[in-house]
Amino acid sequence: MNSKKSGRRRFLKNSAAMVGMAAVGGALPASGQQGTPSGPIHYTGDRPIGETSPYEKLARAGNQSRSMTPLQDLHGIITPSHLHFYMNHERGYLPNINPAEHTLTIFGMVDRPVVLTMAELKRLPSVSRIHYLECNANGNPSVVKTAKTVQQAHGLTSCSEWTGVEMSLLLREAGIRPGAKWLLCGSADTSNHTSAVPISKAMADGLVVYGQNGEALRLDNGYPLRLLLPGYGGRINIKWLNRIKVVDQPYMTTQDRTSYMEHTPAGEGAFLLAEGKALEWHFSMYAKSVITYPTGGHQLPGPGRHEISGLAWSGGGTVRKVEVSTDGGRTWNDAQLQSPVLPFAHTRFRYIWNWNGNEAVLMSRCTDDQGTVQPLPTEVAKNWDVDSSPSCTNVLGQDCYKVPRRAHRAYVMSWRVNRDGTVLNASTDLPEDTSIEGGEHHG
Amino acid sequence: MNSKKSGRRRFLKNSAAMVGMAAVGGALPASGQQGTPSGPIHYTGDRPIGETSPYEKLARAGNQSRSMTPLQDLHGIITPSHLHFYMNHERGYLPNINPAEHTLTIFGMVDRPVVLTMAELKRLPSVSRIHYLECNANGNPSVVKTAKTVQQAHGLTSCSEWTGVEMSLLLREAGIRPGAKWLLCGSADTSNHTSAVPISKAMADGLVVYGQNGEALRLDNGYPLRLLLPGYGGRINIKWLNRIKVVDQPYMTTQDRTSYMEHTPAGEGAFLLAEGKALEWHFSMYAKSVITYPTGGHQLPGPGRHEISGLAWSGGGTVRKVEVSTDGGRTWNDAQLQSPVLPFAHTRFRYIWNWNGNEAVLMSRCTDDQGTVQPLPTEVAKNWDVDSSPSCTNVLGQDCYKVPRRAHRAYVMSWRVNRDGTVLNASTDLPEDTSIEGGEHHG
Repeated sequence: MNSKKSGRRRFLKNSAAMVGMAAVGGALPASGQQGTPSGPIHYTGDRPIGETSPYEKLARAGNQSRSMTPLQDLHGIITPSHLHFYMNHERGYLPNINPAEHTLTIFGMVDRPVVLTMAELKRLPSVSRIHYLECNANGNPSVVKTAKTVQQAHGLTSCSEWTGVEMSLLLREAGIRPGAKWLLCGSADTSNHTSAVPISKAMADGLVVYGQNGEALRLDNGYPLRLLLPGYGGRINIKWLNRIKVVDQPYMTTQDRTSYMEHTPAGEGAFLLAEGKALEWHFSMYAKSVITYPTGGHQLPGPGRHEISGLAWSGGGTVRKVEVSTDGGRTWNDAQLQSPVLPFAHTRFRYIWNWNGNEAVLMSRCTDDQGTVQPLPTEVAKNWDVDSSPSCTNVLGQDCYKVPRRAHRAYVMSWRVNRDGTVLNASTDLPEDTSIEGGEHHG
Repeated sequence: MNSKKSGRRRFLKNSAAMVGMAAVGGALPASGQQGTPSGPIHYTGDRPIGETSPYEKLARAGNQSRSMTPLQDLHGIITPSHLHFYMNHERGYLPNINPAEHTLTIFGMVDRPVVLTMAELKRLPSVSRIHYLECNANGNPSVVKTAKTVQQAHGLTSCSEWTGVEMSLLLREAGIRPGAKWLLCGSADTSNHTSAVPISKAMADGLVVYGQNGEALRLDNGYPLRLLLPGYGGRINIKWLNRIKVVDQPYMTTQDRTSYMEHTPAGEGAFLLAEGKALEWHFSMYAKSVITYPTGGHQLPGPGRHEISGLAWSGGGTVRKVEVSTDGGRTWNDAQLQSPVLPFAHTRFRYIWNWNGNEAVLMSRCTDDQGTVQPLPTEVAKNWDVDSSPSCTNVLGQDCYKVPRRAHRAYVMSWRVNRDGTVLNASTDLPEDTSIEGGEHHG
């Protein structure tokens, strides 16, 4: 963990040539000379919005069904709302909801069913929390194998400050009846998307949110209301939320049955029981990290000291440690974690690397506060079908698998730095993903 | 501090009429019925940016010289970058800098003068920190007296996650010579804006930043590079930063002399010494808070429980406590602070208020971890010209005033809730501000 401190002390001295330190005279440079090629911009009226420089071209990449966050170009942990990833079932159809007409209905096994308008929800006691949200599809090996950038490989994760109401408040006040254990949460989108959520999770830290980084939710993030279940995969965090039905058991929805089950040991797809239930759900995302700099599209100017930077997160809780390897996984070094390190939030890590100019393979590995370690691709493949002691949710009270399938897209990714300073995806030889989670999702 | 917890438990029960709880049947409402008056929006191509809903109209307010953040409409602590306040000397002229041509020069009393390109700066070890930035002009009584909204009264403060390089790294590597104690930091704007900064502050926690909430700085926030001195007034946080000259004493710049000095006891303006120096600088902003809901423009629907929410911050460090009064300052109650509570950052506070429907005056008061308490307007006026034991920076080593003038715009603001639920500015009778800080600033 001293890498940063000692690195800083010696950074400029050891890399004087690289950073282009040039002696200059003591004269004060004339202002304005060095940076206004097209002259100042003159605004004569009000400027309601602070514009982006015309020299900056950040954008999500994707299509009408999914858009990825440009992780390789972003700093810190907050994803600007307009660059939050987008994933949708409905191939480009977005609800355009008038908030004055939108309501949230809580009904089913409750003592006091309620219909709340947005104005009523906003008057309730509120909380703000910084949490990441990751699409269940993120890290799909078939996508990662061919990705040129980290945006293309892992850009279905973003982190925001969310504001809303605790689900525990809503459920306590509605009055949960004895025997109620699950919620069916539904969307106002055109697909009638609905998903089953354990009441235990909703009561622990679940939120219904209307605020994202200070403003209202963006249109494609569920405006005006969405579910936010910290650490759970994106598709369960219902967007355009309009109903919560309190029920006794995890009724399977269409999507649950077809797209989101954990695999059976045979790897044949969701294991459906005779009565139409499945063996296991896939809720919390895994401990994970990606290097964001240097990655595909970046160009190192030459040997010397460089800061390797990236993001780590875990559906299990808080990031405890990130290790970085610059030799393809032979040796690992602790990276520095940027504070604040928050539960269920992106955590920025940094590691100072003194590159000798030879080909190098960069990797990062996250460990969370549950002790969960991000696996190597070989470790994922090795344990793919191993049935051992229980470790994950089983809605029928049965044992689950030691290496849950939720790990299958959380493997360590590799980037190769070539002698010419170019950086290429080195995760091109991943084991096959047998998951059936290939459809359009709701993250 | 139990107000929130007990408030939550009883919130819906005690205010059932107010929040419009209506019993509904157990039937599942049809999705899509309740909120898509104009039908879904269909995107057929890529969606590079996540748009704001057409029902949302958030904007800064102001003119080409200043724009205020819409505090009354925002949640949490992060200000979206496009809504960050804007204050400029040059009446609308913004540098339009090509980052490929921009450099930062560090020279003067250093062993190794340097010229760093933006690419070189970005390769140095970086840090990300969540800090507020407040214009020195914020809270000017002449403005607050006539303000209709908290945006108009106090909207010259915003909070972002900034990313950049520690000034201590740059200065250590350039090699500060013996006797050097100040920096003259200069802008590439058309005014040649320059300001003196104590080296002690730069070494403690000063940053040069290129990132704001993940992206590059916005155009009017100093793109591509600005100074960030946590807790210091906006105008010292030089935007479009292109030079740092290391010097032996606090050379006065034009603006320092004319606009930004602490007043003398006589209140006659900056106290200039014979050699053109002044008695005192005005650096750290004071401990402060504002209620953001309910304030001017909001309408309470009726008596019952309401969450009073707002922001607190301090140039002295970390917010320790926020008190709320609902009876014009006769009694005060601790508000709940939303975590994370970070140094030199906006801190969100919340307080559950059971309104009986009578006229009420709402106030908030911040105490920071230095024990500094936000003063009432009467307290500011009372101590306006009191000369007592030293408490603030004096660049000539002389004693300063116990109640520094930096407190003069940090007084508690009041909002009156009328019986009909309308909310009006009640800070219309403020003592006169004798400050001469009335020009165009650089925050």
